[in-house]
Amino acid sequence: MTDGRPLILLTNDDGIHAEGLRYLHLVASKLGQVKIVAPDTEQSAVGHSITLYDPIKAHEVMKDGVFYGYGISGTPADSVKLALYSLLPRPPDLVMSGINNGSNLGINVLYSGTVSAATEAAILGVPAMAISLAQKKDPPFGWALTHIELLGRWILEQGLPRGVALNVNVPALPPERIKGLRLTRQGLSKFRESVEQREDPRGNVYYWLSGQGTEDETSDEVDITALAHGYVSITPLFYDLTAHSHREELACSLKKI
Amino acid sequence: MTDGRPLILLTNDDGIHAEGLRYLHLVASKLGQVKIVAPDTEQSAVGHSITLYDPIKAHEVMKDGVFYGYGISGTPADSVKLALYSLLPRPPDLVMSGINNGSNLGINVLYSGTVSAATEAAILGVPAMAISLAQKKDPPFGWALTHIELLGRWILEQGLPRGVALNVNVPALPPERIKGLRLTRQGLSKFRESVEQREDPRGNVYYWLSGQGTEDETSDEVDITALAHGYVSITPLFYDLTAHSHREELACSLKKI
Repeated sequence: MTDGRPLILLTNDDGIHAEGLRYLHLVASKLGQVKIVAPDTEQSAVGHSITLYDPIKAHEVMKDGVFYGYGISGTPADSVKLALYSLLPRPPDLVMSGINNGSNLGINVLYSGTVSAATEAAILGVPAMAISLAQKKDPPFGWALTHIELLGRWILEQGLPRGVALNVNVPALPPERIKGLRLTRQGLSKFRESVEQREDPRGNVYYWLSGQGTEDETSDEVDITALAHGYVSITPLFYDLTAHSHREELACSLKKI
Repeated sequence: MTDGRPLILLTNDDGIHAEGLRYLHLVASKLGQVKIVAPDTEQSAVGHSITLYDPIKAHEVMKDGVFYGYGISGTPADSVKLALYSLLPRPPDLVMSGINNGSNLGINVLYSGTVSAATEAAILGVPAMAISLAQKKDPPFGWALTHIELLGRWILEQGLPRGVALNVNVPALPPERIKGLRLTRQGLSKFRESVEQREDPRGNVYYWLSGQGTEDETSDEVDITALAHGYVSITPLFYDLTAHSHREELACSLKKI
């Protein structure tokens, strides 16, 4: 059953019980009728993955004795597919994914489950935004709500170009200290990463991946820098990985073989 | 220890024991010195995911009593990171990912573990190609080797623009029946997908995702069509998801809020 209000689908990659999703629910309820379909468990760094070789289970999750949403056994992108193809009464007007604790910027956008849910919605023709708050530990989600409401309302009024999803990163600052909104591009600098080698008590070698942000970018046009300078970074994303600017050169070179 | 020959890293998403990797090993050995670092188990449709919250284990895999490569407990992208940061004696000259049984085309490129390994290598500054053979069941991998050798040699000689990886899809045809090479772009048509709802013997509902190819694309410039018409499709990929063509329009509209 839907009323006349916009229908908004919420999902995330931290799982249906995450605090960030509860805050997103708070603010989305001001904008329309809200439905939640989200992974059962944390799915961080799952990238844009889907579940093809296992069945996906969905179960009703209650909060304070009231139906809260569907918890599913798949990924964020699965959640969006299942919601749109089966669980929702009609296509939603907006998909919101988040609020992630910690930013999703630069090349990390490729690994982000939060972002992949928004991209998946865009592929399926629904305006979407991924929202991340730039603080991993004890994130002050409440501070992000003003700007999320503003942007959600803007999308519901204006729509988005077909296939485009917004990757929104909010600084961990009180709303009045945020400098404004910046339309950005995805940073392309390599992250400073490393692999740490350890040995378990039985002498077996294992490895941990770790990475730190890059500071190579300096323009406020870039997501990483805009955020660091106190702006809400808004990157429009489109699901085309083709290296268009190199196609001609490579086509030429290929003709010679 | 490396000799003077090019160093080639092989990986895949079907796991280190996959037949497609064995064929890739055959052909890559003609081009240089080969190292294998690949997931222990099948990782299809993992997309561009990495393992942050679990340690990654690597173990030596033998074939016919000889060291074959490292099997790791992570994803294809993890394999590339671990190889480059820790397991290889020096950065490789080429990363080859595959041979996947079944094509990786259009929007599915976003979900493909095979492709993500090549993209990851490109991010880390190494020329890379993902190779898929367009037959899921009993794939005739041997037919693809002529073109893989040709392209591998070409990359080793010419290099690739920095950050670019090639997504190569080979028709399931004997080499002499393949029409040639086509430099393509990623198809953007939505796949025809559905979710099938079923009930288990205890009455619990579960879902299967299923999808079929799209036929909306008609130009041989598009990966899907080029392959269907009997060409080897070669799509240059770059890890920038920014919707550049919509940035100005959105920046304008954002200024009004």
